[in-house]
Amino acid sequence: MTEPLNDFSRLCVHTMTTKPWTLEQAVDGYTRAGIPGITVWREHVAPLGAKKAAKLLRDAEMKVVSLCRGGFFVASGAQAREQAKGENRRAIEEAAELGAPVLVLVCGAAPEVDLPRARQQIFDAIHAIEPDAKAAGVRLAIEPLHPMYADSRSAINTLEQANNIVFALNSPMVGVAVDVYHCWWDPFLRSEISRAGKSIFAFHVCDWRTPTRDLLNDRGMPGDGCINIREIRGWVEQAGFKGFVEVEVFSDQYWGWDQEKLVERIKRAWKQHA
Amino acid sequence: MTEPLNDFSRLCVHTMTTKPWTLEQAVDGYTRAGIPGITVWREHVAPLGAKKAAKLLRDAEMKVVSLCRGGFFVASGAQAREQAKGENRRAIEEAAELGAPVLVLVCGAAPEVDLPRARQQIFDAIHAIEPDAKAAGVRLAIEPLHPMYADSRSAINTLEQANNIVFALNSPMVGVAVDVYHCWWDPFLRSEISRAGKSIFAFHVCDWRTPTRDLLNDRGMPGDGCINIREIRGWVEQAGFKGFVEVEVFSDQYWGWDQEKLVERIKRAWKQHA
Repeated sequence: MTEPLNDFSRLCVHTMTTKPWTLEQAVDGYTRAGIPGITVWREHVAPLGAKKAAKLLRDAEMKVVSLCRGGFFVASGAQAREQAKGENRRAIEEAAELGAPVLVLVCGAAPEVDLPRARQQIFDAIHAIEPDAKAAGVRLAIEPLHPMYADSRSAINTLEQANNIVFALNSPMVGVAVDVYHCWWDPFLRSEISRAGKSIFAFHVCDWRTPTRDLLNDRGMPGDGCINIREIRGWVEQAGFKGFVEVEVFSDQYWGWDQEKLVERIKRAWKQHA
Repeated sequence: MTEPLNDFSRLCVHTMTTKPWTLEQAVDGYTRAGIPGITVWREHVAPLGAKKAAKLLRDAEMKVVSLCRGGFFVASGAQAREQAKGENRRAIEEAAELGAPVLVLVCGAAPEVDLPRARQQIFDAIHAIEPDAKAAGVRLAIEPLHPMYADSRSAINTLEQANNIVFALNSPMVGVAVDVYHCWWDPFLRSEISRAGKSIFAFHVCDWRTPTRDLLNDRGMPGDGCINIREIRGWVEQAGFKGFVEVEVFSDQYWGWDQEKLVERIKRAWKQHA
C-alpha cells in the first residue's frame, strides 16, 4: 500500500484469469503489461509440455509464483487414491521443471465420501507425498476452499483445518494458500492467518459479487464485490508474508472480454483494491 | 428411525417447499396427505391476513411449528435498522396470532456493511426484541446460514456463532434453528449441536445436490444429495430435541411439479432419508 502508483513488482496473475489465452499469449501479454509474476495452471502447460513451457517462462524472465493445481486426493476406492498420489508426484516434478517453488493443493471431495473420511484421506495423501516435495524442493500449499465446494472440490473449508494439517505434519514443505474468496466470511480468519504465520505460501485475491450468479465462474475483480481484500492483505503481511499478491478470477464474464483489455483491468483493480 | 413406516407424526412441511400453493391449498394438501406439521412463511400469510390464516390453521387442526421468517437486521443506516426491528416485532405478533411457538430468524447481511459490524448489529437487534418475544410467548430461533449467503442474507454462518449469541443473551426465548443445508460442511457441527442442547428450537432438512446449479433455488429433497441427514438428526436428538423434522426445500425444479405429487415425494423422502 506504500508502493508508488507504478509499482507492480508484487503483482502476479493466474493463467486461469486469462483462460482464453495460451501460455505463450499469456507470457507475451503479461510481459508487455509489466506484470512480473505468473501462476501457471497445468491446463495451460499441457499443450506445450513442461520442458517447452519452462523455457518460454525462463526466456521471458517471468517469475513463476506457483503451479496450480495438485490435490483431489479424495476417492471411495483405494486404487483411485493411489492414482491421485501419482498424479500429484507428477505435478511436483512439473513444478520443479517450471521453476515454480509452490504447488497449490485443492484437496478434493466426493459426494459419496463422508467429510470425516475425506479429511483423513487428504491428511494421509499429503503426508505420503511430502517426501517427494522435499526431494524436488517444491513446497505444498493447502488451499482451503469455500464451504460451497465441500461436496466435490475440497473437504478442507476453513483456514483452521488447513493449519491443523500443517501443524500436524510439521514440515517446512507444507503450508497454506490464503484465497480471500474462500475465507472472507470466516469469523476466525484473522486469528488463523496469524497462527499460520510463515506457513503462508501464497495469497490469492478476487472478489465476491452480489448477487453471485454461478457457484464457480462468477468471481469478481478486486473492487467488484464486498470482500475486505486490503484488510486481509494487511493481516497476511503482518503474519510475515512478503510474496506476490495473485489475481485469480474465474469469470465467464471476464473470459468473454478482449484479454488485452482484461489485463489492463486487472492492473487497475490490483492497484486500487488489492 | 424407530417409528413404524406409516408414522408421519413428526413431519412438518414449509409452505415455501410447495411455494406455488396458496396457504389454503397447502393446508388442504397437507391435511389430505396426513402431514401434521406446517411451518408458515409470511409470504403465504400475507394474502389472507394473520387472523384468517390463524382460523384456517386452527380449523384444519394443523400444528403450526414455526413462522418464517424474521431477521434481516443489518443495514448501514440507523433508520433502516429501526425499521427492521419494527418489522420483527410485527412478525412476533403474527407468530403469536397464528399459534406459532417459534419465529425463525435469518439474521441479515449487506455487502456494504463489514461482517464484524453486521454481527454486532444482529446481536443488538435480537437483544432489543427479546422482551417483545417474551411478552408474546414466541421463541426466537437464530438460523445460521451457509457462508455463501454471508454477503446479503446472514452474517451468522456457523452454529458456533449462533450459539455464542444464545449463550450471551441467556434467555429461554432465544435459541437456534439447525438446517442441515447450511451446516453440514462444518467440522464443529456435532460439538456445537451438543453445546446448543435444549436451545435447539427447530430442525430443517433438505439436501445438497452435486452439482448445485443455483445458489438459492436448487436444493434437493432428502436423498437427492450428499448430506448425512440421518446422522445429524441423531446428534440433534441426542442433544434433547424432540420436535418436528421440517422439510424446507427451495427448488425451481420441484416448484415446477404438480404439487400434489410433490407432497407424496416429500413424504417418501422424509421417511427414507430424514
